Amino acid sequence: MDENEKRLQDKFSQLKGYLDEGDKKRFRKTYLDMHFYDQSTFYLTLNKPERMTLYSILEPDEMGDMFDTIEDDDPKIPELLKEMDLNYASKMLNDMYDDNAADVLEHLDKVDVDRFLGQMPRNDANNLRGLLHYDTETAGGIMTTDYVEFHEEETAAEAIRALKKFAKTAETIYYIYILDHHDDLVGVMSLRDLILLEDNDTLSEKMNSDIITVNVDAEQAEVAQVFRDYEFLAVPVVDHSNKLVGIVTVDDVIEVIDDEAQQDYSGLAGVSMDETNNDGPFKAASKRLPWLITLLLLSMITATLINHYENLLAEASILAVFISTITGTAGNAGTQSLAVAVRRLAVEEINRHEFLKLLVKELITGFVTGLVTGVAVLLLVGIWKHNFVLGMVIGMAMCAAITVANLAGSFIPMLMSSFGFDPAVASGPFISTLSDLTSVLIYFSIAGVFMQYFIKV
Amino acid sequence: MDENEKRLQDKFSQLKGYLDEGDKKRFRKTYLDMHFYDQSTFYLTLNKPERMTLYSILEPDEMGDMFDTIEDDDPKIPELLKEMDLNYASKMLNDMYDDNAADVLEHLDKVDVDRFLGQMPRNDANNLRGLLHYDTETAGGIMTTDYVEFHEEETAAEAIRALKKFAKTAETIYYIYILDHHDDLVGVMSLRDLILLEDNDTLSEKMNSDIITVNVDAEQAEVAQVFRDYEFLAVPVVDHSNKLVGIVTVDDVIEVIDDEAQQDYSGLAGVSMDETNNDGPFKAASKRLPWLITLLLLSMITATLINHYENLLAEASILAVFISTITGTAGNAGTQSLAVAVRRLAVEEINRHEFLKLLVKELITGFVTGLVTGVAVLLLVGIWKHNFVLGMVIGMAMCAAITVANLAGSFIPMLMSSFGFDPAVASGPFISTLSDLTSVLIYFSIAGVFMQYFIKV
Repeated sequence: MDENEKRLQDKFSQLKGYLDEGDKKRFRKTYLDMHFYDQSTFYLTLNKPERMTLYSILEPDEMGDMFDTIEDDDPKIPELLKEMDLNYASKMLNDMYDDNAADVLEHLDKVDVDRFLGQMPRNDANNLRGLLHYDTETAGGIMTTDYVEFHEEETAAEAIRALKKFAKTAETIYYIYILDHHDDLVGVMSLRDLILLEDNDTLSEKMNSDIITVNVDAEQAEVAQVFRDYEFLAVPVVDHSNKLVGIVTVDDVIEVIDDEAQQDYSGLAGVSMDETNNDGPFKAASKRLPWLITLLLLSMITATLINHYENLLAEASILAVFISTITGTAGNAGTQSLAVAVRRLAVEEINRHEFLKLLVKELITGFVTGLVTGVAVLLLVGIWKHNFVLGMVIGMAMCAAITVANLAGSFIPMLMSSFGFDPAVASGPFISTLSDLTSVLIYFSIAGVFMQYFIKV
Repeated sequence: MDENEKRLQDKFSQLKGYLDEGDKKRFRKTYLDMHFYDQSTFYLTLNKPERMTLYSILEPDEMGDMFDTIEDDDPKIPELLKEMDLNYASKMLNDMYDDNAADVLEHLDKVDVDRFLGQMPRNDANNLRGLLHYDTETAGGIMTTDYVEFHEEETAAEAIRALKKFAKTAETIYYIYILDHHDDLVGVMSLRDLILLEDNDTLSEKMNSDIITVNVDAEQAEVAQVFRDYEFLAVPVVDHSNKLVGIVTVDDVIEVIDDEAQQDYSGLAGVSMDETNNDGPFKAASKRLPWLITLLLLSMITATLINHYENLLAEASILAVFISTITGTAGNAGTQSLAVAVRRLAVEEINRHEFLKLLVKELITGFVTGLVTGVAVLLLVGIWKHNFVLGMVIGMAMCAAITVANLAGSFIPMLMSSFGFDPAVASGPFISTLSDLTSVLIYFSIAGVFMQYFIKV
């Protein structure tokens, strides 16, 4: 990679030179020979005057090819579009793959969206409006309508001839979609299979009619699972009457998988991962504080609970020594159980029967880990404090607290999931703060019962 | 999806029927018409006698197509291979895509690997041995050698003719790789571009010579980043003398991205995610206990620290009430900062200058969140306990503890990364347990200084 990067840096300085000298011809040749992603990386290093020169050198469709590779949530995009001539920007958006154009428009003000769409041919504008209409995290929200369809009676030779025409504009030509005379989707064929056909073979003879589709309303996570399982490069998207309305391509699925992983990860950490490298410390703090303050309030309930046991604590201040050991360990166990449950829920739906089975499993796992940890802490405390009754109290509390935390760690995400919420929102910090509360309650209840035995007056 | 699933279930019971009746012909037709992934799903539902019948019905290459889609870490694989005839299994492995075959062999005992390879033609066996030699988490470990290469002087027509021959065996024919007469990689062309050429165009005229490659030793995460950026369907892998040795295809990259996300997620949760659904509670407990016990020991240090302040606690048992509020909130803040740092380290390398810049940013972010949280807790405690001095002590401790936890949350993963360790190993539970320790130290130190002012005798 380092060599790739060095070569790219050299090329970039060469390109800047051409741009400064106004050597349009050399610039175009070098620039257009680069990968679209490298073009966009170069573009994003330019200052405004340099970009204005670039717009005068490149055609809108050449800009569009490059713009396709810019992350749609890049915060610079609205400003970039505004500095372009309105007509130029609209043409460029129209020349982009329509899923990418829709993603870009998604991040603009409604007024700007209307300005850009207003400049486009009506059909194209309506097509983009249609895509904007879908939820961003569904198949409809990530699909493109730039796919290639044929009718089943067409021949292989006709299809290949037509494909050559589509090769420029379609997002992929590696799958073709085959419709019957009702325009229902009846088959799929890969280009790999297509080039193996004889010229006169009709598509219907050789197509694959065991079609895996996704519904336009399907969650993007479900779409990603289809790609994982079947290893497709694209999947057709159908509406409720089974009409083909678009396709999802594998590059967008990689983004989906990254998104979903990010969401799970953020949930577990209790922090919104849209915190970017450019966020200053104040912005970062403002994004982290809502969670922290919410959890602080929850932990204040734990404080009032401990306060309730103040007399016990006054008599046996040794109990305070082990509060954080018990809450901390139970919180860790709860986080483990939460993580396992969230990952499982991410890949499969769980019915009532499995729900119970899993809870029982977590109950036993919690009890076993609690027992082992409890015995360990019994020995540690007993030996350290020469007080095995105290050790036993803490060991029992630990065992019970871990069992409860384990149960909560799997029960809460499963409950959320069964009510249709994203289980990943039940974050690790939430579980551990909640488990602080139950752990303290358990600890002091047990200590209260046995107090007379472990206080050495 | 539900409709897809239902249709599949119907097909499976139909297939079981044919299998029971011994209707070989109908079985083959229905079975071979299914997607390979569906074939493998069906296969994995069979019991041993049914599978033995299946082996007698299907040719090794037909089994191989299906076996390609089974997860290579499926624990059933070794048993499945052993129940097959040795010759049949070897043929099947040899007919699989070589990256998948190597992944399967990776999970077998050395003796079994040698048995299978011993049955293969020497070239094929050596090829697989070569692949087994690479680290599993590098480009070499995930690449396939089933790609298509041409010499630069060949024409488009020749290439397409040859491609038709390779269409069956190559893992992808959507990119072709072009070598010069030294067998150095000099160009890449997509099938999309190839079919647009005139029959007599030579490949060297129209190929893309700005080739993005990955080194055979590159980390798999780095390979994934190339796919994210460039949206390729495959990337060529070269050795140190820039010779083409394989390609990585996008389906394997999706697995890599899932793997990496899993690793980050497991790290944050302090639990090994190889816990499968089939693990019973005892196995699950045995996987979670090592972390819990390690962290328990760390938290015992915190306990000894609190023990050190027993006199203080005996005099002011009210201090015990807020231990878990302070440790909990600081732990949450540390987890947030950890998560942000780990995600950043996953996508970019950080040099010494940025390292310091990030630490300063986290220091300020920590101080700002600490200040806001501290003021909140000051007011809450002050009003609740009618004791604003106590509130101030707790607020100050909170602010300092959060600042330190934030700093630790970003410093530790960055330090690990700069020493070449995976920063994701610095788990959330570890950071929060560590931060318990520092928080307690800060809390009691501050409380000790101000004690005379907040104890109302």
